[in-house]
Amino acid sequence: MKKIHYTEPWTKSVHFTILDVERLHSEVSPFQTIDFYRSDTFGTFFTLDGLMMVNEKDEFIYHDMISHVPMAVNPNIKRVLIIGGGDGGTAREIARYSGIEKIDMVEIDERVVRLSQKYLPLTAKTLDQDNRIHLFFEDGLAFVKNADKESYDLILVDSTDPIGPGEGLFTKAFYDNCYRALSNDGILINQHESPYFNEQKHEMIRAHAKIKDLFPIAEVYQFHQPTYPSGHWLFGFASKKFHPIKDHKMAAWEALNLKTNYYNSDIHKGAFMLPTYVKDALKNAR
Amino acid sequence: MKKIHYTEPWTKSVHFTILDVERLHSEVSPFQTIDFYRSDTFGTFFTLDGLMMVNEKDEFIYHDMISHVPMAVNPNIKRVLIIGGGDGGTAREIARYSGIEKIDMVEIDERVVRLSQKYLPLTAKTLDQDNRIHLFFEDGLAFVKNADKESYDLILVDSTDPIGPGEGLFTKAFYDNCYRALSNDGILINQHESPYFNEQKHEMIRAHAKIKDLFPIAEVYQFHQPTYPSGHWLFGFASKKFHPIKDHKMAAWEALNLKTNYYNSDIHKGAFMLPTYVKDALKNAR
Repeated sequence: MKKIHYTEPWTKSVHFTILDVERLHSEVSPFQTIDFYRSDTFGTFFTLDGLMMVNEKDEFIYHDMISHVPMAVNPNIKRVLIIGGGDGGTAREIARYSGIEKIDMVEIDERVVRLSQKYLPLTAKTLDQDNRIHLFFEDGLAFVKNADKESYDLILVDSTDPIGPGEGLFTKAFYDNCYRALSNDGILINQHESPYFNEQKHEMIRAHAKIKDLFPIAEVYQFHQPTYPSGHWLFGFASKKFHPIKDHKMAAWEALNLKTNYYNSDIHKGAFMLPTYVKDALKNAR
Repeated sequence: MKKIHYTEPWTKSVHFTILDVERLHSEVSPFQTIDFYRSDTFGTFFTLDGLMMVNEKDEFIYHDMISHVPMAVNPNIKRVLIIGGGDGGTAREIARYSGIEKIDMVEIDERVVRLSQKYLPLTAKTLDQDNRIHLFFEDGLAFVKNADKESYDLILVDSTDPIGPGEGLFTKAFYDNCYRALSNDGILINQHESPYFNEQKHEMIRAHAKIKDLFPIAEVYQFHQPTYPSGHWLFGFASKKFHPIKDHKMAAWEALNLKTNYYNSDIHKGAFMLPTYVKDALKNAR
C-alpha cells in the first residue's frame, strides 16, 4: 500500500507528523471525516476531522486514566454512562469490573464504532462480547437530558474537542443534565483538554469554570498522552460527594488485582498534583 | 526576516514542526551546530545539532524541575556543580537560593553560553551577574574526574542526549566520578531521557542501570516538557543518603517563598509517582 505522511496541526503553527503511514480507510460520515491509518510506531490509529483520536501504542494511557481513577474512588459503581468513546476502549476497561451492572454507551456516530470493530479490535472487541454494554447511536446531549434522575453512578465523557459533534458536550446545559442524571454519590469524568497551548487552554478554562459552578467537588488530573497536542492532557473529576484523593479506596482497588500498564495507586495520587501554572489557570477559571 | 519551517525528528518516523520561524543565527562550533530561532509560539529557542534545547515558552519547566527538587530535599546544599546547561537557566534557578556558596558550571562549548547571553537573556542573564557562578569551558567528564573528593553537595547534569558532546555524560566512568566528587549527603540529578519512544527509552534504561548500581538511592521523576520528544521527560535523582520523598523538606522550602511556575510541593511528590510501564522498564534496567 502507498505510504503517505500524516500531519496534524496541534496549533496553527505547530505540526505533528507521522511519516510513512498507510491509509486503511477514509469516509465522510453524517457527522465527520473518519480516517484509519497504520504506522510502524503507533500501529493502527484513526482520526476524526483530521485529529488523532486513538492509536494502538498509547490508547492504554487514556483509557486507564478515564476509567480506573473513578473506579478506585467508588468501587460500588454499578451503572455507567459513556458519552462518545466510539473506539470502545473506555467500555473495555469499565467492563473489567465484575460489580458493574450496566454500561450505556452513547456514540453519535455509528460509523466510528463499526470501523473500530473492523480495524481496531484492540479497543473495540469488548463492545459485542459483553451483554452489560448497550450501544445507543444518538446525540449525547439529548440522551442525558432524557435520562432518569439519579440513574447513573458514573458518567464518562470520552469526547472529541469542543468543535464539530463534540461541541454540545462542553456546554453548561450538558453538565447540568449530567448532574441531574447522576446518583448522590455520582462521579463525572470529562475530557478536559490541555493547559499548554493557548488553543486547548482556552477550552480547559471554559469547561472547568462551568463544572466547578455545578459540582461541590471539581478537581482536575493530568497524564502524559504523547499523541495529543503538547502531550500534557487532562481529565476533570467532578462529584457530588467523593473527593478523588480523600476518598481514594486504594486497598479495595488493589484487591481486584487488575493489571494496568499506566494506572496504579501512586499515579492516582500523583495525577492530581498539578504544576503551578495549571493550578493558577484553573483557580482563575470563570 | 524570511520565515522558514523548523522540523525536528523526534524519531525516524515522528516529526515535530514549528511553522514560520526566523533563524536568528547559525554556526558550527568545534563541538556542534548551533542554531537560534524565533517563533511566535515559543519565543526565542535554540537547537544543538538540530534538536531543541531551550525555548522561552517552556524553559521554566525543565529548570524548575532540575533545580528545586534537590534543593527541597537538602536545603543545606552549598556547593553546586552544573555540567552542561550553557543556556544558564539551571544556574539562574540555583542562584535564587541565598545559602548557596558556589556554583561551578562546566560547559564544553563556550559558544552556547555566549550566544545565549546575546539571544536568550531570559535564561542567561544571571551568568555574569552573580559572583558565586564560575564558568569553566571544559569537558565535563574530565572536570569531574579531576574534582576533589566530596567537594560538591549537588551535581546537576544538564546535558544533551547521549550523542555527540553529551555522550561521555552517560558513561559509568562519569557517574563513578560524580559519586566520588559528591559529599556524603550529596545528590546527583541527571537528564534521564524519556520512556515513550524506543529511541529515548533505550537511553533511559542504560543510564538508570548504571546509576542504580552505584548509588544506594536512585529514583526517577517525570515532568511534562512538550517540546522534547513525546513531551514525557525524566530526571534521575541519585543520592548517598537522602530519599527524595522521605527526606522532602517541604516546610523549609516553602518558608523560602520562591515563586515558581511549574514546581510546587505537590508536584515534588507527584513527579516521583510513575506510570506502571515506566516503573517496569526502570525496575528491569540492567
